[in-house]
Amino acid sequence: MIVALAGGVGGAKMAHGLQAALPPGALTTIVNTADDFDLYGLRICPDLDTVMYTLAGIADPVNGWGVAGDSRNTLDAIARYGEHPWFLLGDQDFATHILRTERLRAGTPLSAVTAELAASLGIPGRILPMTDDRVATLIDTPSGRLEFQEYFVARRQSDDVLGVVFAGIDEATANAGVLDAIRDAKTIVVAPSNPIVSVGPILATPGIRAALERTEAPIVAVSPIVGGRALKGPAAQMLATLGHEVSALGVARLYASLVDGMVIDAADRELTAEIERLGPRVLVTETVMGDEADRRRLAAEVLEFAGSLALHRMAV
Amino acid sequence: MIVALAGGVGGAKMAHGLQAALPPGALTTIVNTADDFDLYGLRICPDLDTVMYTLAGIADPVNGWGVAGDSRNTLDAIARYGEHPWFLLGDQDFATHILRTERLRAGTPLSAVTAELAASLGIPGRILPMTDDRVATLIDTPSGRLEFQEYFVARRQSDDVLGVVFAGIDEATANAGVLDAIRDAKTIVVAPSNPIVSVGPILATPGIRAALERTEAPIVAVSPIVGGRALKGPAAQMLATLGHEVSALGVARLYASLVDGMVIDAADRELTAEIERLGPRVLVTETVMGDEADRRRLAAEVLEFAGSLALHRMAV
Repeated sequence: MIVALAGGVGGAKMAHGLQAALPPGALTTIVNTADDFDLYGLRICPDLDTVMYTLAGIADPVNGWGVAGDSRNTLDAIARYGEHPWFLLGDQDFATHILRTERLRAGTPLSAVTAELAASLGIPGRILPMTDDRVATLIDTPSGRLEFQEYFVARRQSDDVLGVVFAGIDEATANAGVLDAIRDAKTIVVAPSNPIVSVGPILATPGIRAALERTEAPIVAVSPIVGGRALKGPAAQMLATLGHEVSALGVARLYASLVDGMVIDAADRELTAEIERLGPRVLVTETVMGDEADRRRLAAEVLEFAGSLALHRMAV
Repeated sequence: MIVALAGGVGGAKMAHGLQAALPPGALTTIVNTADDFDLYGLRICPDLDTVMYTLAGIADPVNGWGVAGDSRNTLDAIARYGEHPWFLLGDQDFATHILRTERLRAGTPLSAVTAELAASLGIPGRILPMTDDRVATLIDTPSGRLEFQEYFVARRQSDDVLGVVFAGIDEATANAGVLDAIRDAKTIVVAPSNPIVSVGPILATPGIRAALERTEAPIVAVSPIVGGRALKGPAAQMLATLGHEVSALGVARLYASLVDGMVIDAADRELTAEIERLGPRVLVTETVMGDEADRRRLAAEVLEFAGSLALHRMAV
């Protein structure tokens, strides 16, 4: 059993590669839910849906989120009623939010709803929300505290991030399935997702960091920063304004106490020695994922690297 | 001010004709809500929506319900999740149900939600649900008691109707706006909707029949039965199995104690004397509504007929 920790698009691509490289059902993806929010009375779980659509092979190949070829007739009609849509939702996407909201309201936990939806889409492995409880990322900016999607989508990540709060995280409980999956994992891959707002909430969920510290499986993180820039999203600016170095080294410093290995891009090869001085071993490869073959190739390399770390551990 | 009592497609066409024949804002349509139900966690109000789409000029011209040219991508995606859709909902239609459900859950009464939605679509008059309370039509059949949409849509009206129950009607309160509109009306038109399950619940809502009996305005009903057949829907079979005559005379018997006039089709001309013996005066005309001009023509004739009844009243 292989476990991936994932946020949105980058995490979904990594999980997709792992799914392709592994036997059916061998992958469990633990997903950030601190970006989840309510819109038009529906519960939207952006990272869960991006992972689910990607693993089902129906994700929009250009955006990375949403369903490929989806139409926007429902959202257009919502606008006709005087709303001003700021978060793009496709018609097929609405089906996900409608059914999820119906089941959540009926008392079904998010993990069970997610399992049902993912199974219907033919996904062989498991997708686990980090928690069934509600956690909300709040972003402190010079303009005040913003809800995550307000910062991320409505204001297009244009505010300096001065602080990040995961409201509700202390009262949240990690899903039992999450802790079991970490305990039983052969390898754990921290996907190239935003370390602050995607992987951060997963690690902050009570019980998850302790389970990761306890596991004997090698933990390998793939840097989402390549050549000093984020492949997607606001990770670079966010690291900078929060006082971290915007590089694979900066990411390694955040993960050093937790991971056994760091996978960095060939563009960052010169950081290898400095990262290894922090503790983790380093694999240098091409980390920018394009098509499915590319994702699978990176996943296979990451798994092989993790395997070598496990052997190394056994040897010492 | 003119008031129409309406169910679904037939009632919507009549209201549309009245809207076209009257000055902007002069029409108030009181609509049956006993067919309303929950599907996928959303509140669906078929008759309110049919009236709203029709008065907004966006109704599907073939079906009479739903939005013209609507797609079904959300429903198809719902089916991909393993559901078996039995009630057709278009993508634009979903927007209505999503926003309505959001506002109802926030505590906004159905009448206020309906007013907002209708205003956004540019409808000049008022559309009033008969009540803000939940009422549910149940159909007794040889196979047992069925929810209305199960009888009407899922089982395609194939069961004999042995009885009809409006669950919750005794505890329901007519909207104040409904009672005021009836009190202040110059004319009241009972649209050619199903007398049992469309007009029936409106008349059974506490306070409405009494308000109709008190008003000085002439009340005119248009027969939904023409030549012994219903123009649309199960009215004919339903009247028969409930022991009523399936004719404009049978409809007149149901309405005789309430209305001052009956509008019947030229095909039923020979019933005139017998209906007038029950009390109401009769107008014979072409009652089958086709295009908008046709609806407007019938509406103008109905209004003129009602006006003549008012003059007659003043004269006696």
